[in-house]
Amino acid sequence: MVTGSSGFIGSQLVRALLLRHERVVIVVRAGTKSSEFPKGDVIVIPDPGDAAELGQSLSAHGATQVIHLATHFLARHTAQDIAPLIESNISFGTRLVEAATAAGVSRFVTASSSWQHLRGERYAPVSLYAATKQAFEDILRYYSDNAGMSVRILTLFDSYGPGDTRRKLLPLLLRALGTGEQVALSSGRQFIDLLHVDDVVAAFLHAVSDDCPDGTFTVSSGQIVRVYQLVQLLGDLAGRSLNVVLGAVPDRPNEMVEPWEIGLTLPGWAPRISLREGLSLLISPQEDCSTMEKS
Amino acid sequence: MVTGSSGFIGSQLVRALLLRHERVVIVVRAGTKSSEFPKGDVIVIPDPGDAAELGQSLSAHGATQVIHLATHFLARHTAQDIAPLIESNISFGTRLVEAATAAGVSRFVTASSSWQHLRGERYAPVSLYAATKQAFEDILRYYSDNAGMSVRILTLFDSYGPGDTRRKLLPLLLRALGTGEQVALSSGRQFIDLLHVDDVVAAFLHAVSDDCPDGTFTVSSGQIVRVYQLVQLLGDLAGRSLNVVLGAVPDRPNEMVEPWEIGLTLPGWAPRISLREGLSLLISPQEDCSTMEKS
Repeated sequence: MVTGSSGFIGSQLVRALLLRHERVVIVVRAGTKSSEFPKGDVIVIPDPGDAAELGQSLSAHGATQVIHLATHFLARHTAQDIAPLIESNISFGTRLVEAATAAGVSRFVTASSSWQHLRGERYAPVSLYAATKQAFEDILRYYSDNAGMSVRILTLFDSYGPGDTRRKLLPLLLRALGTGEQVALSSGRQFIDLLHVDDVVAAFLHAVSDDCPDGTFTVSSGQIVRVYQLVQLLGDLAGRSLNVVLGAVPDRPNEMVEPWEIGLTLPGWAPRISLREGLSLLISPQEDCSTMEKS
Repeated sequence: MVTGSSGFIGSQLVRALLLRHERVVIVVRAGTKSSEFPKGDVIVIPDPGDAAELGQSLSAHGATQVIHLATHFLARHTAQDIAPLIESNISFGTRLVEAATAAGVSRFVTASSSWQHLRGERYAPVSLYAATKQAFEDILRYYSDNAGMSVRILTLFDSYGPGDTRRKLLPLLLRALGTGEQVALSSGRQFIDLLHVDDVVAAFLHAVSDDCPDGTFTVSSGQIVRVYQLVQLLGDLAGRSLNVVLGAVPDRPNEMVEPWEIGLTLPGWAPRISLREGLSLLISPQEDCSTMEKS
């Protein structure tokens, strides 16, 4: 059972599960009628908003493991965001783990954010978003301690890969590489820990397996670079410079100005795609058959 | 500004604030029309369910400090309890601290529960209730770290005092002392840390003052006893034995079978009412004038 299957990581994870011939149930927002996956490949359950009813659905579909990726990200919030942040990041997950417990699901895997761990601290949130994520982990702890749920939490930094439409730095830089448009950045001294989505998906597939212990683990590329180094690397790989103005805007508070060491690395998993390799694939994608036929 | 003013501790705290001639605003559940306090003594704001609107109310009434005691306690939960637990213990508090921040309130004091700290651990919840309390503390951390809110959290064990109608062990034993009815207990080996409500109120009055540092502090009687010792002490003080059957029911899991040491004690505060003294007052209340006139 997967949530967040319409997201960048979730959609790739579902595809990976289908390639492994797993039966996949996705829980989607109430009112959502369909999914991006071919009909018949996945079972779609709209969130009934009630833990007991959701538990009956999970039970009826024989769900054995849950990967909960649905999240409501906000860099900054206003008063109006409180209710949706709590609903998406705390209430939905709580209904889900309660339902999973009732349905006899044995394993619950979810994603944590590095923004809960400013400077690598055990807990220091940079945003209300990060605080609501930590709050849900507090609730998960009740189910692992008292209801026997096997819980694995993966702390993610940044991810990238093909088809990424999120409003993030790398998609912005890649677009600028194509258009030549100018990009105004801050100092560029911040570190960025970019993990290829295939490696992220591999981490989740490992985390849901019997080979992984319970606990909270960090999933890092092991290859953090400063933003200005990323800009340079992209230019080198593309063979043309990006039109980037460093220092054009002030640094935001709470960015990663020193590398953060957060907890234990996920045991039994290691990234396989280097940043250079992953970026090369994005800059010069391998042509697929249809393109070749046309050319 | 006080929440939970209809509760055992909250109502006594509001009375203490009024005796100090403080202006007291209480935020009550939506739909609640009145309070137990004389009209004009307190300003009553029904929770508008919206942080922005609540912030305007706090601002209009010039609130400078918040004491948030409203809580939804449940020893055990079912699927149906999830929504009200999250609404009362997480959402309401989040709206409140957001509103307080917007209204320029400088200090936020709230209560934590020893049930978040099984065996005295930094965090080990015994119930979903305890987990939702911890979740809210993690949200508070966002406001103390990023919005400059001065936050003080008092971790409470058990409290007692006159007028306690909560379904707890001591009120049950006191009733049995009067009626002679039999009380079936478990082994009685569990520890109980009973703090007189006047001392609890004094702790909150201290926590809201400039003399207290920010942080999370434990408020303990310093006089923990085993349940069977409490039964004996009550019998000694009353001059008659309680009809208590020890071992009649099994011990519940997660009780305090060894004393729990939880964090730092609230600096600048100490309990003033010994357990013997506090229990004596409950067993032989000082007669008030009206009773004396009648006799």
